[in-house]
Amino acid sequence: MDAPTPLKPTRLPNARRGWAALRDRAQPGVWRHRPALGLPADTPAISLGEGHTPIVRLPRWGSAHGLPRVLAKLEYVSPTGSFKDRGAAAVIAVLAGAGVTSIVEDSSGNAGAAMAAYAARAGLRARIFVPQSAPAAKLAQIAGYGAEVVAVAGSREDVATAAEHAAHAPDVAYASHARHPAFVEGTKTFGLEIAASLADDPPLHIVLPVGNGGLLLGAFKAYGELAAAGYPAPLPRLHAAQASACAPLAAAFSAGADAPMAVQAQPTVAGGVAVGRPARGAEVLAAVRASGGSIVDIDDDTARHTRAELSRLEGLDVEYTSAVGFAAAAHLHQSGVIGPEDRVLIAATGSGLKDAGV
Amino acid sequence: MDAPTPLKPTRLPNARRGWAALRDRAQPGVWRHRPALGLPADTPAISLGEGHTPIVRLPRWGSAHGLPRVLAKLEYVSPTGSFKDRGAAAVIAVLAGAGVTSIVEDSSGNAGAAMAAYAARAGLRARIFVPQSAPAAKLAQIAGYGAEVVAVAGSREDVATAAEHAAHAPDVAYASHARHPAFVEGTKTFGLEIAASLADDPPLHIVLPVGNGGLLLGAFKAYGELAAAGYPAPLPRLHAAQASACAPLAAAFSAGADAPMAVQAQPTVAGGVAVGRPARGAEVLAAVRASGGSIVDIDDDTARHTRAELSRLEGLDVEYTSAVGFAAAAHLHQSGVIGPEDRVLIAATGSGLKDAGV
Repeated sequence: MDAPTPLKPTRLPNARRGWAALRDRAQPGVWRHRPALGLPADTPAISLGEGHTPIVRLPRWGSAHGLPRVLAKLEYVSPTGSFKDRGAAAVIAVLAGAGVTSIVEDSSGNAGAAMAAYAARAGLRARIFVPQSAPAAKLAQIAGYGAEVVAVAGSREDVATAAEHAAHAPDVAYASHARHPAFVEGTKTFGLEIAASLADDPPLHIVLPVGNGGLLLGAFKAYGELAAAGYPAPLPRLHAAQASACAPLAAAFSAGADAPMAVQAQPTVAGGVAVGRPARGAEVLAAVRASGGSIVDIDDDTARHTRAELSRLEGLDVEYTSAVGFAAAAHLHQSGVIGPEDRVLIAATGSGLKDAGV
Repeated sequence: MDAPTPLKPTRLPNARRGWAALRDRAQPGVWRHRPALGLPADTPAISLGEGHTPIVRLPRWGSAHGLPRVLAKLEYVSPTGSFKDRGAAAVIAVLAGAGVTSIVEDSSGNAGAAMAAYAARAGLRARIFVPQSAPAAKLAQIAGYGAEVVAVAGSREDVATAAEHAAHAPDVAYASHARHPAFVEGTKTFGLEIAASLADDPPLHIVLPVGNGGLLLGAFKAYGELAAAGYPAPLPRLHAAQASACAPLAAAFSAGADAPMAVQAQPTVAGGVAVGRPARGAEVLAAVRASGGSIVDIDDDTARHTRAELSRLEGLDVEYTSAVGFAAAAHLHQSGVIGPEDRVLIAATGSGLKDAGV
């Protein structure tokens, strides 16, 4: 299989049936949202119980930053420790349903671990392509799921190209978290959950770290489809946070550009958002602008400080990549974009246990 | 504060009101079960969204071990990565509600991390007493939550004694996961969730790793109270798994003894169950026997093998301590205690991310 098959457009149930029509509590994980997912009806419900993550208030951290109404959605309370599980469940399920027996993916981080875990769950063989420089601990997590780890010399783009080529074989598919359309169908459940859980007092802003933008695009698609179906879920302003060391989208946003800027990536503790050439960057920029949002970048010192604050003040254990999102919310308040009484939801995308030793 | 205050007995709502009466979905984490918890009515809802963990089938791993109807409850999909969050939320909430400003605890593992996180969440100062030999990585997780880590020379019991003495000061409480009665009120939610989720096809067996026994005692109490209130939730047989290197309860069970046997603890990869003198060991033995269960011990090689199997066959990432429970289920099937058609639920108590590098 060369390229992912385009999926049919999502059909949401009639608005008059209410929120309940969007969910089927008997289904596991993201599949409880099956009626709202644009996936083939016979897609098997491959799941490890992902999604349905807690939303908690952060009274102490919020007060310290002038944001008394801030909420965090703890996406790290997830089977492999990140939001990537939502998208991986959807991609692997679609591929398993289509008769694929082997997948390839390129990621040394959360996406690689998630795809490896869900491939194991579905009984598919997995090969995960990683840069030669990837940390041994992250590779051990991927290999632990039985995936074959293939180290590739060269740039991040060279790794992706190698993965893409490896998918040019019978019964093998490129389960790309950055490109496969089912990934965003999975991450859409993040937006559906927020809209449903906070229907009585919806957030004005959602702030989240963005590398390839899979979570942001999922949230944007969820709200767009809810609106089209007549659900009373106003689109929050979607704000993206990047690491200063690698910020092609923040640079494009500032410059008023429609596509990611070329950047020279530097090392950063926030490896999860260090994507130099995001495949769907133009879509991310368009979604942020359509929502009235913004894109900012955060330096490593601030990410470190913010991560420590969240642990000490609220008991949250997030990875540095996630801390970037929280720091961005504080920054957007300081610059007047987020008002002091605005309700803000920040995605805590990945577990701090993954950054042990960084 | 010297000793934990005894709590009033739990009152469950009338059986005729059905399962729904046991839950309040507007409450966060374990507090959605507040009507069923034997805690003061004005206890603040300190929470990180713990509990409500996924229950998944394990078709491949189960078939490989002759257990086609096996289920796992993924307790590691939890804010700090283990079931201890259920108990820590309850203990810290009760203490915060009573005006305590500082807690002490003794644990270098999951309980220490959970108590430190929930103390931070409640704005309480925490001091966690640990053996001098505790691994640096685990201490870093505890210290990350702002807790003071106090290393104590001597035996595990010396560490507990030091913690207990430190609680003999005004406004300081001993938030012991092994002794404080609110801990079991929190872990009771594990049993309540199983009884509610699997009401139509309840498990005949629950298998779980046991060190101090906080999860097993919680499950036992949950089913006992449900039965007393007239709910149709038959008590499953509760089977406990220990590490062969430190198995005072398994030895007592085999010997027909009513109290834990004296053992000489050896090193083990399953550190979470390596408790030489479990404070409530006699209660654990009584609960297991009352349920028709058993206690077995598992060696480290089997724990390692089982952990790898679960990752490769099902995409589960559990710590070695949790793998002991799965190995025990397979062992109990081989020895004829668990029948091939029996529905079995195994608690996946802690995240494999915590064992990185072991």
